[in-house]
Amino acid sequence: MRSVALRSVFLAALAAARLAGAQDSLPSWNDGPAKQAIVEFVRKTTTAGSADFVAPEARIAVFDNDGTLWSEQPLYFQAQFALERVKVLAPQHPEWKAKQPFKSVLAGDVKGALATGQKGMAELLAATHAGMTTDEFAKTVSDWLATAQHPRWKRPYDRCIYQPMLELLGYLRLSGYQTFIVSGGGVEFMRVWAERAYGIPPQQVIGSSGKLKYELRGGTPVIVKLPQIDFVDDGPGKPVGIQKAIGRRPVLAFGNSDGDREMLEWTKAGDGARFAGIVHHTDAEREWAYDRKSPIGKLDKAWDEATQKGWTLVDMKSDWKLVYPDAK
Amino acid sequence: MRSVALRSVFLAALAAARLAGAQDSLPSWNDGPAKQAIVEFVRKTTTAGSADFVAPEARIAVFDNDGTLWSEQPLYFQAQFALERVKVLAPQHPEWKAKQPFKSVLAGDVKGALATGQKGMAELLAATHAGMTTDEFAKTVSDWLATAQHPRWKRPYDRCIYQPMLELLGYLRLSGYQTFIVSGGGVEFMRVWAERAYGIPPQQVIGSSGKLKYELRGGTPVIVKLPQIDFVDDGPGKPVGIQKAIGRRPVLAFGNSDGDREMLEWTKAGDGARFAGIVHHTDAEREWAYDRKSPIGKLDKAWDEATQKGWTLVDMKSDWKLVYPDAK
Repeated sequence: MRSVALRSVFLAALAAARLAGAQDSLPSWNDGPAKQAIVEFVRKTTTAGSADFVAPEARIAVFDNDGTLWSEQPLYFQAQFALERVKVLAPQHPEWKAKQPFKSVLAGDVKGALATGQKGMAELLAATHAGMTTDEFAKTVSDWLATAQHPRWKRPYDRCIYQPMLELLGYLRLSGYQTFIVSGGGVEFMRVWAERAYGIPPQQVIGSSGKLKYELRGGTPVIVKLPQIDFVDDGPGKPVGIQKAIGRRPVLAFGNSDGDREMLEWTKAGDGARFAGIVHHTDAEREWAYDRKSPIGKLDKAWDEATQKGWTLVDMKSDWKLVYPDAK
Repeated sequence: MRSVALRSVFLAALAAARLAGAQDSLPSWNDGPAKQAIVEFVRKTTTAGSADFVAPEARIAVFDNDGTLWSEQPLYFQAQFALERVKVLAPQHPEWKAKQPFKSVLAGDVKGALATGQKGMAELLAATHAGMTTDEFAKTVSDWLATAQHPRWKRPYDRCIYQPMLELLGYLRLSGYQTFIVSGGGVEFMRVWAERAYGIPPQQVIGSSGKLKYELRGGTPVIVKLPQIDFVDDGPGKPVGIQKAIGRRPVLAFGNSDGDREMLEWTKAGDGARFAGIVHHTDAEREWAYDRKSPIGKLDKAWDEATQKGWTLVDMKSDWKLVYPDAK
């Protein structure tokens, strides 16, 4: 087919560009075992004639988002969005003053809100992420992002993304890989900004989701976000989410926590060359340092498995020259 | 970003190629209003400076499958697969001889099987599409396709695809559109052959699906197909399926039946230039002629809406020079 032939031409051009610029594709990565492992993997899977060559259509790379592409401390950014939405919506819900988890949220008591557990979190999600159309929700997220600031870094949340991972995404795409997000976060939340922030279009964003309903409102078709959870894209849900949305096993996967373990396992268990990488948060100064004991982004079993199986561990402090795009 | 710049170069090359070959992109289409409408739409949405220009990343085109890209008579091909699977699996299920809908299927009484209604169909689906891993199911479909023959045309089912639609898919991709399938058919069934048949990769195939479960079998990760239905990608489910998988409203949509109506409505209701097309089965000799009264692929309300709203109707008999790729 014509488009296949054209793609070959395009990929040949990409290969030439890659040869010229390979050394500079990851300028924010220190020369170390992690960078070496990445570059070697990309080289061998994209070099025609290599025993580990991967056909262009099979070059699927998947990335967790929270803690892998952007920060997740002191609280998942989407949770921060939900908390701030409760405050904005509170005047329309006087009953929230006496009702958990809203009562705690409105009192600024995040720990108290979290203590309401899964049931409380589901109510929080339903109140802030459902009961509107998908377009209305996207606008709410977009408006929030435009003004909200991260409490520690005093910068927009979508600038708390990792420069070295942006370079990795670009390097992979330059090498003919398709890059996907596979996140426990909400898919409708991430799609609003993922293309601008990471160059990853909506159809390559996989995440948790609520049920949706198509309806006509005054003759105009809308899609409404319902308060029921449809799919949780975390832990064993990640390989399932990949199968549902991509239908092809990834060749490369990156995560940072135990919630990514099954995705990394599923990726590595495929035939041929496969890459599993973990971002290890070791830099309390430029970002955060946390792993086995952290309530957010706990890295425990996946760390053990990475050590046993030779997955690539990225040590944020020693492997990255800088963390955020515009940081010193 | 580098990849964006490269994509621009690529798209410029595509535009040049398109100028050179535009007249020949749809050789199996007769010159008529349908072909004219398609070519004019693609021209105006891909010409820089045009009032109807659509940015490359927004060029999403969606296609129903059964009756739009391949035939669906005398029975949906996936249903044919299910019926044939029942016969293959029957020796392992002696109880089926006395149990509907299996009893009817084994007696060759398709009408009797269909008469068991949704409950019967769900049992048939569960028995033939679940209880195995996704890899096992894909192999079953692939093996079946390699030998099964269409009862009327005596050719493989994946050669009962429409040559003019193949050309349309290629023409759209050459014009920077991403082509997706959005079908009521099973996503795991279609992905096995859609890339080979249509050039549409698995991640661009959206369909109905059963629930999936990740598990380890003897230390090896597998994804198991469960007997519960997860999502029905038909009627109002189609815009929902599009939102779930793509997260962006299509610019162009093609269907052939009332099951595609909401997808066409949703597409047309977007801002800017939008295209809705319907394949009308009018050719009893080269394919089939059916519409308002057909139990399969019923085209009734969508036809009325197409007429009222000026959607493009493709008359198979007069608009297509040939139907199947290797037909006379």
